[in-house]
Amino acid sequence: MSGNTLGNLFAVTNFGESHGPAIGCVIDGCPPGMLLSAADIQPDLDRRRPGTSRHVTQRAEADQVEILSGVYEGRTTGTPICLLIRNTDQRSKDYGEILQTFRPGHADYGYWHKFGIRDPRGGGRSSARLTAPTVAAGAVAKKWLKEKFGMEFRGCMTQLGELPIPFEGWEHVPDNPFFAPCADVSALEAYMDSLRKAGDSCGAKLRVTATRVPVGLGEPIYDRLDADIAHAMMGLNAVKGVEIGDGFATVAQKGSYHGDSPTPQGFASNHAGGILGGISSGQDLEVSIAIKPTSSIMTPRDSIDLHGNPTVVQTKGRHDPCVGIRATPIAEALLALVVMEHALRHRAQCADVQVDTPDVARLG
Amino acid sequence: MSGNTLGNLFAVTNFGESHGPAIGCVIDGCPPGMLLSAADIQPDLDRRRPGTSRHVTQRAEADQVEILSGVYEGRTTGTPICLLIRNTDQRSKDYGEILQTFRPGHADYGYWHKFGIRDPRGGGRSSARLTAPTVAAGAVAKKWLKEKFGMEFRGCMTQLGELPIPFEGWEHVPDNPFFAPCADVSALEAYMDSLRKAGDSCGAKLRVTATRVPVGLGEPIYDRLDADIAHAMMGLNAVKGVEIGDGFATVAQKGSYHGDSPTPQGFASNHAGGILGGISSGQDLEVSIAIKPTSSIMTPRDSIDLHGNPTVVQTKGRHDPCVGIRATPIAEALLALVVMEHALRHRAQCADVQVDTPDVARLG
Amino acid sequence: MSGNTLGNLFAVTNFGESHGPAIGCVIDGCPPGMLLSAADIQPDLDRRRPGTSRHVTQRAEADQVEILSGVYEGRTTGTPICLLIRNTDQRSKDYGEILQTFRPGHADYGYWHKFGIRDPRGGGRSSARLTAPTVAAGAVAKKWLKEKFGMEFRGCMTQLGELPIPFEGWEHVPDNPFFAPCADVSALEAYMDSLRKAGDSCGAKLRVTATRVPVGLGEPIYDRLDADIAHAMMGLNAVKGVEIGDGFATVAQKGSYHGDSPTPQGFASNHAGGILGGISSGQDLEVSIAIKPTSSIMTPRDSIDLHGNPTVVQTKGRHDPCVGIRATPIAEALLALVVMEHALRHRAQCADVQVDTPDVARLG
Amino acid sequence: MSGNTLGNLFAVTNFGESHGPAIGCVIDGCPPGMLLSAADIQPDLDRRRPGTSRHVTQRAEADQVEILSGVYEGRTTGTPICLLIRNTDQRSKDYGEILQTFRPGHADYGYWHKFGIRDPRGGGRSSARLTAPTVAAGAVAKKWLKEKFGMEFRGCMTQLGELPIPFEGWEHVPDNPFFAPCADVSALEAYMDSLRKAGDSCGAKLRVTATRVPVGLGEPIYDRLDADIAHAMMGLNAVKGVEIGDGFATVAQKGSYHGDSPTPQGFASNHAGGILGGISSGQDLEVSIAIKPTSSIMTPRDSIDLHGNPTVVQTKGRHDPCVGIRATPIAEALLALVVMEHALRHRAQCADVQVDTPDVARLG
Repeated sequence: MSGNTLGNLFAVTNFGESHGPAIGCVIDGCPPGMLLSAADIQPDLDRRRPGTSRHVTQRAEADQVEILSGVYEGRTTGTPICLLIRNTDQRSKDYGEILQTFRPGHADYGYWHKFGIRDPRGGGRSSARLTAPTVAAGAVAKKWLKEKFGMEFRGCMTQLGELPIPFEGWEHVPDNPFFAPCADVSALEAYMDSLRKAGDSCGAKLRVTATRVPVGLGEPIYDRLDADIAHAMMGLNAVKGVEIGDGFATVAQKGSYHGDSPTPQGFASNHAGGILGGISSGQDLEVSIAIKPTSSIMTPRDSIDLHGNPTVVQTKGRHDPCVGIRATPIAEALLALVVMEHALRHRAQCADVQVDTPDVARLG
Repeated sequence: MSGNTLGNLFAVTNFGESHGPAIGCVIDGCPPGMLLSAADIQPDLDRRRPGTSRHVTQRAEADQVEILSGVYEGRTTGTPICLLIRNTDQRSKDYGEILQTFRPGHADYGYWHKFGIRDPRGGGRSSARLTAPTVAAGAVAKKWLKEKFGMEFRGCMTQLGELPIPFEGWEHVPDNPFFAPCADVSALEAYMDSLRKAGDSCGAKLRVTATRVPVGLGEPIYDRLDADIAHAMMGLNAVKGVEIGDGFATVAQKGSYHGDSPTPQGFASNHAGGILGGISSGQDLEVSIAIKPTSSIMTPRDSIDLHGNPTVVQTKGRHDPCVGIRATPIAEALLALVVMEHALRHRAQCADVQVDTPDVARLG
Repeated sequence: MSGNTLGNLFAVTNFGESHGPAIGCVIDGCPPGMLLSAADIQPDLDRRRPGTSRHVTQRAEADQVEILSGVYEGRTTGTPICLLIRNTDQRSKDYGEILQTFRPGHADYGYWHKFGIRDPRGGGRSSARLTAPTVAAGAVAKKWLKEKFGMEFRGCMTQLGELPIPFEGWEHVPDNPFFAPCADVSALEAYMDSLRKAGDSCGAKLRVTATRVPVGLGEPIYDRLDADIAHAMMGLNAVKGVEIGDGFATVAQKGSYHGDSPTPQGFASNHAGGILGGISSGQDLEVSIAIKPTSSIMTPRDSIDLHGNPTVVQTKGRHDPCVGIRATPIAEALLALVVMEHALRHRAQCADVQVDTPDVARLG
Repeated sequence: MSGNTLGNLFAVTNFGESHGPAIGCVIDGCPPGMLLSAADIQPDLDRRRPGTSRHVTQRAEADQVEILSGVYEGRTTGTPICLLIRNTDQRSKDYGEILQTFRPGHADYGYWHKFGIRDPRGGGRSSARLTAPTVAAGAVAKKWLKEKFGMEFRGCMTQLGELPIPFEGWEHVPDNPFFAPCADVSALEAYMDSLRKAGDSCGAKLRVTATRVPVGLGEPIYDRLDADIAHAMMGLNAVKGVEIGDGFATVAQKGSYHGDSPTPQGFASNHAGGILGGISSGQDLEVSIAIKPTSSIMTPRDSIDLHGNPTVVQTKGRHDPCVGIRATPIAEALLALVVMEHALRHRAQCADVQVDTPDVARLG
């Protein structure tokens, strides 16, 4: 496929630009018979939506999703589901300057050399706005995985710029604009306020998990479950690192410590993050991602123009000072989409497999 | 594709098991007309080969590659290239015990639940031995990319267990069994000796780079260049983390620091690792991976048997006490395969694109 | 991919149902920089449009295409192009009877067993209305192939039911509602009138060609150019046969007659239809397809209900008495899409190939 | 995929050349746990093997298949199955003349323009010898489909050159070298003898069927079951036409005649060949293919040399005077591979679907 599709059996094809008439996606391969309406999708879109706090971009987008196909009388029919989100707040402005220069840290330079043309309006195709259709598709996958396996997908922020965030409990996540798993976010707010004042931006680290994962998902070589998770996560705007389980900490671990022992009472630990040999063990999936600081900042920086001459650029407009803040629902959606793909793929090849061995992860 | 193929336009399909008659791969999509013989492939296989120092498994495999198809009178014909490596040192032994239990940290448990059958001989399909065909295919990609663009792929170890390894220069890498970029590896040797004595294992961190990367490779959404690199790397046995450029360090960076400024003298820095918005900037690709400690250790560990009853397992046989030691050529190969795929894909869509803007990465 | 996508490098993902809010497609992989507007697409949609003569369905659809993405300031950007066509004339009616029975010759029975749910409104996903997005995508491919290679795609009807149609010249095709290449279509009109009076339907045979085809398109085994053409054509509603070149007539030919001799003045004949060994020879592509009689007829027929009990069904509503009549532009579009895919694929693998041998097809 | 792979979930990647060291394929996606040995595959290879009668090429190839991977203790493991067939009878000869000219009707000219290099030894990659791995893979699919659904695949010749062959019964097929379904093949033998004496060749028409087909296989648009069958069949060497059910005869049929009525006693007819709307109806699949006359004939013919100058070519060596004679087992294999792909795909998406409607095809 030509680059804008995620998955094969549950294939999500993404289209649109930040300031075009609409963005959206087509989901091909959704199992038939599932109850589905916009109300199942909208809550996750609302969690990702801009303009919900002073720490994110003030662009006002309702992000209302419309189901154009694939659903009849409230149920999926097994045919392609087209989800459409109209862009409504595309401020008109002069893009001449943006088109003449390249913003450091931005996709501008690569797009220009690749395509020889670029849509400067709000970043065009490179805008993080294009994660909205991913979130919408992820909501469909989440629903099916929940109904079929009882799976739950959750995410939270574990570090904001230089500030590590303590994990106090999932219950705190919905109550603050950072998706932080702690009660007091005043330090985070102060940090963001000072950044915004300085015209600068920062990165973030997120954690995403899935529970009640079926055991046996993933292919032995190349298309492993962890490989596909890494692909999906690193395919998200601004992500520069992906970890499964203990991730980079495993480098300094000993084998005698790292190996998670299965026991009759469940696995004794989960250093592997729920995946061994590329295949799910049935334990919770544990994924971490690093998100770089937003490239669009008010601070002037050196760059070049279209002809290679030196110039200085300064980004204006509405931007998230930390793109990681709104990324939690996106990372959850990506994890759900990968699991969905492998759940369907597993049925294709292994639907007849039966073993007597208990699923010890369910006991843990 | 059904999981064992990497790439679409330069598609590498991997087959074989550790102790079956042979392992190998089929490369579909190699451009025609390139001089190719086993001598182009063998050096990288030799770098990965077991038995070359006391710090790796003592299995004696010549890993001689045979080209079965796709080459006529020394040149690639554009048709599928089958590369075959016969297994020669498959020691016969009793696998009954392995089949009755699950080794912690191993793929056993997932394979069993997924397939309902597993090949216990040396890990079967889950063995790191299956990376040899990947290395062979990577050598073909490396050759084409070198001839076409002058690209070079290099890798080294940057941490062995708890020991960080200083980067003193690429010239040291070929002279020691660790692919360490430093002159003195005595501390690394002592560390490995003590580990082996303790019947334990450790992890490693590797760095891989590519130079003279064409600008403009990668697709905007989902199949970004970094996403496909992450997929390939995380698909390598025992990898638990992938970073592009500054990776997880970007979390604490400010936007004003992170953004790499293009200047008429080249890019001023390379925090992004050569990829912006999923598309290569022409700068060097910089990738880091975390490899977990080997799961096969002599230390007894708790586990369960096929019926879920508690048991104790102790791995015997020949194993690498740090699978990261031999992984450098594999990681290089994977990076080359991903770049090759995107180089071909780029020609498909964008062969007609021409821009006047200089390629500033070439000036850096 | 999950079934509703045609092509890989020029990938067209089709969505929608006959009476849903909209139908459309996403084209992923279109080369950047091409001028493109709705005006380039609309003419082919208009040729396929219902309601243009008394011999086709009287459903009144404007079939106005809207470009939702992938075009900036009138040029393709290399990112996904979403084409949307709103459905406007979806007559409301009671579908209870249709849902309780299976119409002979229709997709009903298979859809029901496959999906367990079906959209009865105008045939839902199985409606020939879903060929409109294919035509729209084909218009984009046609434009690129015309600008790049000077290619032209043409089609005509060669048989209507029992009536063979003489080929008098392409110039007649646009002037009659049958896409017939002859001046006098009064016999065809009389035939259709009598069919309609009888409440019956008939089949048709079409011919499609492409000129100025580049030599060298197609893959040796499996994904041959002719194989992909056959796939595309047989994937069109109601098609039951596909021929390349002399097709079924080759069975009774001798090798000494069939082989098309290349000569310095061009190929001496074109029995092969422009494809040898799965690869284009540069001669005109010649394809024929058989289209079965429309299944929706007024004549009552035996069938069963949902519970397997005998019943009689009689189709009402607006239907084409010969679906082949409007199929010519669709077949042209499919041929263009397949050629486009292979043209892009060829550049990926073989962009560097140069031979001195003249392209004799250009002399013919 | 890069052209040499058939299928996605049951993906067969074909490699090799007529006179290289070996030919073969890798099957990725075979369900685990099925008993499989070379003895399951060899019978179909033997049916296709050269040298079995005076009417086919006298090349002496044992075509012994070796299973290199994917099977452990006699059962498939769910990992890639590599099937290898060593070439043994590659006569050495001078290919200089072949390389300087283009044989009419052959792939030479297209290969040369596409790849800029060609392997002249026995046709290299374009040889019909490459259908042997397809037959081997098809045998694996047939076995699974037989065990799972009781499916049977059968084929026969229905026309040899100008001679139509009456269908007297399947029992005659194994008893003659033509796969003819009749008792007396003396006319066919005389026809072939006279052709051989004349140094000429002829075409053939074949019929392939599948019984006990599951209802509901195939995707609505583009990847329909019939589309994928057409793709597979037209991808077979020398095929120029494909029909499903009544094929081209449907053009002159009326809708009132063509539609197959489901009744409580089974379908009343099978004009559709078991596929409606791209989805299997559960009736027998009925496919016909047209195979052109062999291009390699002793008769001298006009052609050009590498520089475009006129020349005369005359093919020598061992060739089948009618390639259709050995094609029956290949066509069966291709049909089995397509059904296998769709059977696995169906489970992925629709494993949970249950309807009460009886499968009337099973009553027919």
